[in-house]
Amino acid sequence: MGLLEKIHEPNDLGSLDLAELNTLAQEIRKHMIDVISKNGGHLAPNLGVVELTIALHRVFDSPKDKIVWDVGHQTYVHKLLTGRFDRFSTIRQYHGISGFPKRSESVHDCFETGHSSTSISAAVGFAKARDILGEDHHVVAVIGDGAMTGGMAYEALNHAGHNETNIIVVLNDNEMSISPNVGAMSSYLNRLRTDPLYDKRKEEIEELLKRIPKIGSKVAKMVAKAKDSLKYLLVPGLLFEELGFTYLGPIEGHDQALLEEVLDQAKHKKGPVLVHVVTCKGKGFKPAEENPDVFHGVAPFDPETGKIIKKSSPPTYTAIFGDTLCRLAKDDPKIVAISAAMPSGTGLKTFAEIFPERFFDVGIAEQHAVTFAAGLAFGGLKPVVAIYSTFYQRAYDQVLHDVCLQNAPVVLAIDRAGVVGDDGPTHHGVFDISFLRIIPNLVLMAPKDEDELRHMILTALKYDGPVALRYPRSAGQGVSLTEPLHEISIGKGEVLRDGKDVTLIGIGPTVQICLSAAQELRHRGIEAAVINLRFINPLDRELILSYAQKTENFVTIEDHVLKGGMGSAILELLEEEGIQGVNVERLGYTGFVEQGSISQLHMAQGLSVKGIIQAIERLKIVGSITQSPDRVSTGK
Amino acid sequence: MGLLEKIHEPNDLGSLDLAELNTLAQEIRKHMIDVISKNGGHLAPNLGVVELTIALHRVFDSPKDKIVWDVGHQTYVHKLLTGRFDRFSTIRQYHGISGFPKRSESVHDCFETGHSSTSISAAVGFAKARDILGEDHHVVAVIGDGAMTGGMAYEALNHAGHNETNIIVVLNDNEMSISPNVGAMSSYLNRLRTDPLYDKRKEEIEELLKRIPKIGSKVAKMVAKAKDSLKYLLVPGLLFEELGFTYLGPIEGHDQALLEEVLDQAKHKKGPVLVHVVTCKGKGFKPAEENPDVFHGVAPFDPETGKIIKKSSPPTYTAIFGDTLCRLAKDDPKIVAISAAMPSGTGLKTFAEIFPERFFDVGIAEQHAVTFAAGLAFGGLKPVVAIYSTFYQRAYDQVLHDVCLQNAPVVLAIDRAGVVGDDGPTHHGVFDISFLRIIPNLVLMAPKDEDELRHMILTALKYDGPVALRYPRSAGQGVSLTEPLHEISIGKGEVLRDGKDVTLIGIGPTVQICLSAAQELRHRGIEAAVINLRFINPLDRELILSYAQKTENFVTIEDHVLKGGMGSAILELLEEEGIQGVNVERLGYTGFVEQGSISQLHMAQGLSVKGIIQAIERLKIVGSITQSPDRVSTGK
Repeated sequence: MGLLEKIHEPNDLGSLDLAELNTLAQEIRKHMIDVISKNGGHLAPNLGVVELTIALHRVFDSPKDKIVWDVGHQTYVHKLLTGRFDRFSTIRQYHGISGFPKRSESVHDCFETGHSSTSISAAVGFAKARDILGEDHHVVAVIGDGAMTGGMAYEALNHAGHNETNIIVVLNDNEMSISPNVGAMSSYLNRLRTDPLYDKRKEEIEELLKRIPKIGSKVAKMVAKAKDSLKYLLVPGLLFEELGFTYLGPIEGHDQALLEEVLDQAKHKKGPVLVHVVTCKGKGFKPAEENPDVFHGVAPFDPETGKIIKKSSPPTYTAIFGDTLCRLAKDDPKIVAISAAMPSGTGLKTFAEIFPERFFDVGIAEQHAVTFAAGLAFGGLKPVVAIYSTFYQRAYDQVLHDVCLQNAPVVLAIDRAGVVGDDGPTHHGVFDISFLRIIPNLVLMAPKDEDELRHMILTALKYDGPVALRYPRSAGQGVSLTEPLHEISIGKGEVLRDGKDVTLIGIGPTVQICLSAAQELRHRGIEAAVINLRFINPLDRELILSYAQKTENFVTIEDHVLKGGMGSAILELLEEEGIQGVNVERLGYTGFVEQGSISQLHMAQGLSVKGIIQAIERLKIVGSITQSPDRVSTGK
Repeated sequence: MGLLEKIHEPNDLGSLDLAELNTLAQEIRKHMIDVISKNGGHLAPNLGVVELTIALHRVFDSPKDKIVWDVGHQTYVHKLLTGRFDRFSTIRQYHGISGFPKRSESVHDCFETGHSSTSISAAVGFAKARDILGEDHHVVAVIGDGAMTGGMAYEALNHAGHNETNIIVVLNDNEMSISPNVGAMSSYLNRLRTDPLYDKRKEEIEELLKRIPKIGSKVAKMVAKAKDSLKYLLVPGLLFEELGFTYLGPIEGHDQALLEEVLDQAKHKKGPVLVHVVTCKGKGFKPAEENPDVFHGVAPFDPETGKIIKKSSPPTYTAIFGDTLCRLAKDDPKIVAISAAMPSGTGLKTFAEIFPERFFDVGIAEQHAVTFAAGLAFGGLKPVVAIYSTFYQRAYDQVLHDVCLQNAPVVLAIDRAGVVGDDGPTHHGVFDISFLRIIPNLVLMAPKDEDELRHMILTALKYDGPVALRYPRSAGQGVSLTEPLHEISIGKGEVLRDGKDVTLIGIGPTVQICLSAAQELRHRGIEAAVINLRFINPLDRELILSYAQKTENFVTIEDHVLKGGMGSAILELLEEEGIQGVNVERLGYTGFVEQGSISQLHMAQGLSVKGIIQAIERLKIVGSITQSPDRVSTGK
């Protein structure tokens, strides 16, 4: 029995000596590699914080002390040390423990995260609540250097640094967000790490200052007056000091004893403290150290070699997006692409390699990404912003005002639309139709398969106004991709199958479910029409109304919440046209969707042939189904 | 004829000498005071940028050079100098020129703004487009120190400072956002303004550095190695220099010649430059200099005395919100309030005075405000965040994840919901119902009058989960406010009037329109029921269904866009319950709403008795109206 199995709560760490702690760290790494090689998950970030997490739980007293983990995908070690060793093998699985902090899982998960750059804000909240309630405990935010590129982190630093609340920000600097980090702050941190001056203790610097002889010039007089400022000016981490933080570091993030020593120092300082810890993403697993971006969030792999276990499946929508954009960009020098720290995830890595001058990774800064794109558009280019659906929630105002209100010709590529699987509710992209379709001027479309995606990308780039294009996180359908690119008429849906009894209306990946259901329904004696809606904005009013008249029964199905979604848009249309007597059943999600594989979630939520058949049973045509299934299914 | 009348485009400024420019500045101030004293508007910010705007238009060559104005409410001077003198008296009026930059108004308005902190992002976009297209012009972002508290500005600085694109950021530092500025950055700017060291030229500092004698210690050796760093360390504006900008300033922002000299220097530097200009908000109009927050956005006033022309009207919803919160906070020490740079605008000024320890102005940082509140809530307090509807668009992801996903008991007070009048489309709060009601766990409600608001505040604070409470920018109805506070049942609407022919469903301020319409309809022989819906989430399903059955005709009316709004929620309910044969007419907005007075906009958009009557004419009960109006209206 190893050490790890004996750790049931953080207190159990207290009795271990340094050698045991190092053994524990090894066991943790091994166990994480074992489990994540099967389940997939955020391996590299967790390998990087093993010593840091142990140190935090030895120096601080969770749950009394609050530890807020930014982004939260680096909490596997934390979970192993806070009573979840037994359930760790279920991580990220359907009904298993989450890959992110979850308040319902443990009292040690004091704040749920998933998106970047929120931890300092939450920590300031905990700290202020503590002060007001007269409590006495520590509050720690653990934030990566990548997350520091998000503006929200700066908003929180600006607030925290301005008042005297005790709060500790641990800056976990691994020189990466998901991809190598970008931006001026990143360069600054790099200087902190490498400048010989920065390596010294404050005492030595102060010693130096004393030795500057008194000189008589006017300027020297000012220097004397500004002595305090000058002292700070020579101290490392000045940028943070200027923002009101006491800066400690940079320190080696895999030296257990040093980490504990410095965190303990931080614990005894007054006011806001920033501890700059330098870690190695993927530490202890060579394949991950060498390719930390591949092992950031990784699919199942061989734990010996680190080789990713590839399923042979058609190329993903993401890959087709990237390929098509590269192809179009070759002929059109005005096409530029923007990513918010996700060049690989959004399929833009090749674009970035071929067109380095026309590719912009702006860091984890979705707000800036979108408004920057609007500027590029008015400057005469054709910008394509590729961001995951769930992260567009971070740039809502920018899409609304900076792009749509002024009708800027920007293409908003919405990757990972719909449920995304094991990352769970913080990462499912199931709200975008509702929050985007209400924005005037915005064309909103989704392809039924990866081939239609190609044509839609062309269509979007040809359109002189804002376009949003949503597509799922998954392999394509494996359809042919050889048809020459052509534009699709804006606002025109497509009838894939005619029928007189009921119309199944899908968009994106649910179109395929409609087609399968129609086939099944035919066996049951029901002739279902299938419409690939293609456009949420503008709606194909004519097509919908003609089928309203023809079939009088609609089933709408979307990989999205029901409230305000595609189905609602159709209800609105029927109301606006004063159409009566159409029976509508809407299929989609009714709340936050849990984690699990995409297919598990679709089945559980009724996005399935079975779901459609049940919906039809609720409609008036129910009689014709329920009487015949046995007969039909036996082929008579 | 003055000088101002002769300026038809920026080029006309070129021939003026310094004395004439000073005269022009005076004329501009006088003209703005004249017009804004009648129309209302953002007076103080514009008085502060008269010389700066003249200088920008003399040093740069708009529209070839791009000037992006952050927030945009300080563009009155710019408008006067770019061909809009003739129309200036229509500013902020229905069908008049906008109080913000508007691309359709002038080629000199290259980017539309309204919300804070977007200008640097847009400017980086223009600059990169220029580089890629091989063009040759300057790009300038003009941003206030208040807007620098928004994280998005930092995201853009981080991007701009990292590459060598030529871009000029003019930091217009007036020590205010709308209220006096807050945060660590603000303290930093204050040090820049006041530290004697910072007042010196780089040359002098470098001179000093040379005079530090060579000393033999180890530390001094490192200093020598780090010479470049050290140089920067002693130069003013280091924080910006660390982020990759060349810092120029601080300079006096009302010295015309100095402004032009320094802007010209900036124009000839390579890479990103930040020019720190110190201005006085309200400059040249004593009442505005003394009370810059009052004259930030001001109602009509006496141009001689600066006395605001007060209409005698009932207290505003905002005032009632503030009063009620103060009253409840007296008895409950856990209630805390948060504002994003709007303590006055949100009615929290008194709260801040009575409970300074329990009030947080976090700067123009809506994202941080909301997540900070979630932290406060889990820390044991009862936070109330008061933000305008349109600015919640800036914190959408935070509301969704940090508050609602983890069910944090935070009260989201949504002020300025509905159209707000003369600020126009960037400030109307007409999307919040749609983007908020789709969020699971969130209770969403709106009071029919200012008395119901009081009870709803109590209700929200008693509820153990997230609540959003929307109320308009306007005076209340003048109803009695003496009823003891009581909780309203969550999810229960209210029947204000019974009727058998049609049900009018309103929420918030449209309930009153329903009541008036019902009265008018009665004269026409139609018995209209009126429902005050109160809750969008959860819907009062029972009540709505019973009236669906009873009247079979619904008219819904909301101060909000139609897509995804209250009316859609009702359509969804009818679909979910399989209710057929209910005729529904939805009244609300169909696109971006222009500027004008709230009543002008309501009338134009059909939120009126007339609009309801027209809607009823479109329903099946149309016969009974159209046959009788003459008869009824003559009293027979």
